[in-house]
Amino acid sequence: MSQKIAVVGSGLIGQNWSMIFASRGYKVSVFDVDQGQITRAEKNISVTLTQYEKDGFLRGEIPAAEQTKLVTFTSSLQDCLSGAIYVQECVPENLELKKKVFAQIDELIDGETLVASSSSCLPSSAFTESLKNRHNMLVAHPINPPYFVPLVELVPAPWTKQEVIAKVRELMEIVGQSPITLRRESLGFALNRIQYAAINECWNMYQSGLLSAEDIDKVCYDGLGPRYAFIGPLQTMHLNADGIVDYCKRYADGAYNVQKETFKPIPVQYDVETAEKIQAEYNASIPLDKIPEKRKWRDARLANLAKMKNHLEKDS
Amino acid sequence: MSQKIAVVGSGLIGQNWSMIFASRGYKVSVFDVDQGQITRAEKNISVTLTQYEKDGFLRGEIPAAEQTKLVTFTSSLQDCLSGAIYVQECVPENLELKKKVFAQIDELIDGETLVASSSSCLPSSAFTESLKNRHNMLVAHPINPPYFVPLVELVPAPWTKQEVIAKVRELMEIVGQSPITLRRESLGFALNRIQYAAINECWNMYQSGLLSAEDIDKVCYDGLGPRYAFIGPLQTMHLNADGIVDYCKRYADGAYNVQKETFKPIPVQYDVETAEKIQAEYNASIPLDKIPEKRKWRDARLANLAKMKNHLEKDS
Repeated sequence: MSQKIAVVGSGLIGQNWSMIFASRGYKVSVFDVDQGQITRAEKNISVTLTQYEKDGFLRGEIPAAEQTKLVTFTSSLQDCLSGAIYVQECVPENLELKKKVFAQIDELIDGETLVASSSSCLPSSAFTESLKNRHNMLVAHPINPPYFVPLVELVPAPWTKQEVIAKVRELMEIVGQSPITLRRESLGFALNRIQYAAINECWNMYQSGLLSAEDIDKVCYDGLGPRYAFIGPLQTMHLNADGIVDYCKRYADGAYNVQKETFKPIPVQYDVETAEKIQAEYNASIPLDKIPEKRKWRDARLANLAKMKNHLEKDS
Repeated sequence: MSQKIAVVGSGLIGQNWSMIFASRGYKVSVFDVDQGQITRAEKNISVTLTQYEKDGFLRGEIPAAEQTKLVTFTSSLQDCLSGAIYVQECVPENLELKKKVFAQIDELIDGETLVASSSSCLPSSAFTESLKNRHNMLVAHPINPPYFVPLVELVPAPWTKQEVIAKVRELMEIVGQSPITLRRESLGFALNRIQYAAINECWNMYQSGLLSAEDIDKVCYDGLGPRYAFIGPLQTMHLNADGIVDYCKRYADGAYNVQKETFKPIPVQYDVETAEKIQAEYNASIPLDKIPEKRKWRDARLANLAKMKNHLEKDS
């Protein structure tokens, strides 16, 4: 009999997690307080999995109809958690709410159940400190949209047991996600630190009038981004010379000089005045009312890229 | 009759440029001083275009055999430049050499010919100042591998004419590259500034022991990189809220705090000691002798991504 996973919260992130767990045959019980939201989530998962199957995007080897059946819904937190080996919390990013939900979960689980929060900013130490099962709790932060962008940032609290981190990492790998492990809590986790660093230089270049916003974006999506879809910044250094040590000997002084001459001191404040100029520039290409359409455009590409990466890995 | 383009230097970058221009029907004359290098380049272009055609990676609508015929080779710079509307210089990144080659080109062209350097670091003002045709000269920096990563950084010298920048930008678009225009010379151009910013935070996270090098790379290629293959950092802000102004109102203070708490002051020096630790970690996954193989792995993925992006644009 397949094992059970509990998903607490049935918004978009909860739905993505449910489909990810079901793709590898786990039984998923999804909890929500809002019956209307449950109805929408149930329908959305069914429609989405059917569509993914049609488009060749479905994960795992199980047909969509069977995956859909693996996901059930409940408005009883007790029923949701009962017998679950793992709980993925997906409630809105609000400290008081996380505290409340984690306290309820803590009361209903046994000492074996592992509990991860999908929190994108809040460290789990902020809402698990006083709980009796806190050693089994951590953050497992997904990236949007999780079904097609597999990174999961595992961030332990100071009291999270090492074996718990290892088990959650293993579970993430089993279901096809791509876990990384932070060795301690750190503001912004890892992805946002790289993202803010990249934005900083985009912001500085725009503010100094060096390039248009459209051209700055193009530097990324037609230049640096394709590379970063397959290899990371450190690997890039390693491959662009005879290893990363050789890279540093050859290029580190040049990189230092570029930074010294062109970078502004950090932290950089993303000011509304500059944002307004950029937004005015986007009025021709991505006006506010076209944002939902452009998000769909992006997600279709992320789905195709995920499929392609999967196929290439199987071939090589 | 199709127009002629001159490529000066027949190394890998010169070969890539030749194939790009030939893909849209331009006649390409490639110059090199080294007859052995010419023989290798000629053979390599023929083999490569045939292979690309077979794999579905060939650019343009012209068969590979015809594209190959469009590229001819010469050891006479005069013959190479004669009648060319545009010159793409691709000699090694060495200031004295660039000065010498540009002075020779300057003597042989008329006032209509446009001349771009593939220089990745040196601004063209460093080697065109004293030339009579300097108004027609600039940098057009490709990204490796240019056939599959279309970005070209156009960097004018203070004396480059506006209409020259516009014409080169148009030519780049005609041949399917993706040009951006810097409004003035700037150390590192644009791509390396974003790249160094990203490396800085990877370096800081590794040095502080927050994550392994493998996990840091994964943050990029399974998290941030897929997104950046299709939309840039500023567009990401725009789409992740109701526009970039809304993003700043909601998230700029959080981003500021993450930077303030976790970023180190810039410039960051990529020190050999840290690089040695990272390289030791790569010994299991990408040891030095496997680097050429991993570069091929990467380039195959970049080729597939370029093909996919092209198909998706045609469909949408």
